[in-house]
Amino acid sequence: MSARPPLIAVCGASDARADERRVATEVGTLLVGRGAVIVCGGVGGVMAAVAGAVRRAGGTCVGLLPGADAADANADVTIALPTGLGEMRNALIARCCDGMIAVGGGYGTLSEIGFALRIGKPVVTLGSWDVHRPGDTGTDPAPHPAGTAADAVDWIMQRVLAR
Amino acid sequence: MSARPPLIAVCGASDARADERRVATEVGTLLVGRGAVIVCGGVGGVMAAVAGAVRRAGGTCVGLLPGADAADANADVTIALPTGLGEMRNALIARCCDGMIAVGGGYGTLSEIGFALRIGKPVVTLGSWDVHRPGDTGTDPAPHPAGTAADAVDWIMQRVLAR
Amino acid sequence: MSARPPLIAVCGASDARADERRVATEVGTLLVGRGAVIVCGGVGGVMAAVAGAVRRAGGTCVGLLPGADAADANADVTIALPTGLGEMRNALIARCCDGMIAVGGGYGTLSEIGFALRIGKPVVTLGSWDVHRPGDTGTDPAPHPAGTAADAVDWIMQRVLAR
Amino acid sequence: MSARPPLIAVCGASDARADERRVATEVGTLLVGRGAVIVCGGVGGVMAAVAGAVRRAGGTCVGLLPGADAADANADVTIALPTGLGEMRNALIARCCDGMIAVGGGYGTLSEIGFALRIGKPVVTLGSWDVHRPGDTGTDPAPHPAGTAADAVDWIMQRVLAR
Repeated sequence: MSARPPLIAVCGASDARADERRVATEVGTLLVGRGAVIVCGGVGGVMAAVAGAVRRAGGTCVGLLPGADAADANADVTIALPTGLGEMRNALIARCCDGMIAVGGGYGTLSEIGFALRIGKPVVTLGSWDVHRPGDTGTDPAPHPAGTAADAVDWIMQRVLAR
Repeated sequence: MSARPPLIAVCGASDARADERRVATEVGTLLVGRGAVIVCGGVGGVMAAVAGAVRRAGGTCVGLLPGADAADANADVTIALPTGLGEMRNALIARCCDGMIAVGGGYGTLSEIGFALRIGKPVVTLGSWDVHRPGDTGTDPAPHPAGTAADAVDWIMQRVLAR
Repeated sequence: MSARPPLIAVCGASDARADERRVATEVGTLLVGRGAVIVCGGVGGVMAAVAGAVRRAGGTCVGLLPGADAADANADVTIALPTGLGEMRNALIARCCDGMIAVGGGYGTLSEIGFALRIGKPVVTLGSWDVHRPGDTGTDPAPHPAGTAADAVDWIMQRVLAR
Repeated sequence: MSARPPLIAVCGASDARADERRVATEVGTLLVGRGAVIVCGGVGGVMAAVAGAVRRAGGTCVGLLPGADAADANADVTIALPTGLGEMRNALIARCCDGMIAVGGGYGTLSEIGFALRIGKPVVTLGSWDVHRPGDTGTDPAPHPAGTAADAVDWIMQRVLAR
């Protein structure tokens, strides 16, 4: 197994509410405490909140930006990678991470959850999408809803480290 | 406005049930009758059903394949485009279409719905995902659930032609 | 083997010179005569010239656009697929085709040639890039320079149909 | 301007010769000395050589892998991002960097050079491709050939910091 730390995606809207940004801040701090590297979409809202927490905790946060200009990154991501992919960079975030924490979020976050589950990555949600398929038998690897940032981080780290 | 016909994505699982494949077949026939060009993921299940219906109706169906080999396409797509993008081709399907019809579907379809809504494309569902965001005020451009293939095609063509 | 016609990419600059557009027009006409479907970047210059020739000859030309808006396509592509990938759509053109004809061209065309050769697609050039690697022993599958549109089409169709 | 360090792509073949790997090692050491963060394709040959040098010098090297599995990364990249894009990840490397150093290299490197020049990124080459367009007037922003690793690093850092 690789000696590299696990890579956890933290997803959520760029126009997140204050309570979502607070949760994202907690998540970032806790993930650094657990030795994870964080990847996010690199711009505002939840992404800025988590990047700020990671920087203050001394961790590393990679920002996969939708646009082509690194200057669009929030001030706190450690490494800004402008992808030029637009919203398709959501699929790249889901692809490259070991596990995902979704905090609130809009349709972009929904696409990230769908992608991550499609390719078998564990996903935990905090006040995020609740998704139901007609005829769902409950055997699918649905996103796991967590009540607190600490629960979400515990759950995802346990799943990621067990691989 | 362009003289080109509208491009409608038909999405659904490669391991679709028989009733989902039947609905996809109806959708394909009706879309060709309305002058649309169809885009799909190019492989099995819903994608094979819609491509077969489109071919029999004399229409055009573009298949955006996940893999790198055109030979993986189902026998009926008119034009097979192997993207090599893996499941990220879902984002490309959402990006290039004028509107989307989702029939049943798994997490891949969920990612396509999320993407399409994120970038403002109209989405109609047939026995597909029901998605809820906590605190949702009902003002979002949520996917429109339709009861029959004919209703779905009517709804999407009306939305697409009104643009 | 698939019954679908071969898919030939025709690449070149959007600011092509008149002689390059003339060559692209010849290439398009000849490819339709050979039963090929054409894929190009969907915008101006060489891409508009080849799409126009394909339309007049009654063939099919797929345009993989860099932007997110189908309205940016030239008037003649049969099917416009806005990818939103920016210049990365060049890699998609190289990936999805069975073979490539490069007419003149700038750095974008150079990237398409490099990609196509990297993934083993045959490439023929008409007044396009001449590339040399230090220490090149001449055993690499270099792009094949052709003198006329007819030679280029003959060469690529022979290579593609032999597969 | 951002306070983040410049991001320099180091490109070259996975089956590089020993002399190319030596040059890549020198380039990596020198780039860390200049405060750059390095991005590469994350696998073998030139990519492994530069990642090893960066690790030993205490720097940061991001690996954008073609495949979907982080375990395919060489042992030395600091952050492994499996993109699942196949060779299209070359376009992502060109897109996200501030400047590019190409060491030797095959057709994949040629595609990276083409892409980087197409989107206006400075490119310096060390024993890499020599490209000529018929009718080239010498006014294009061609790749700059350097004689030594030190010259290449000087040239690229000067160009990148001047922006």
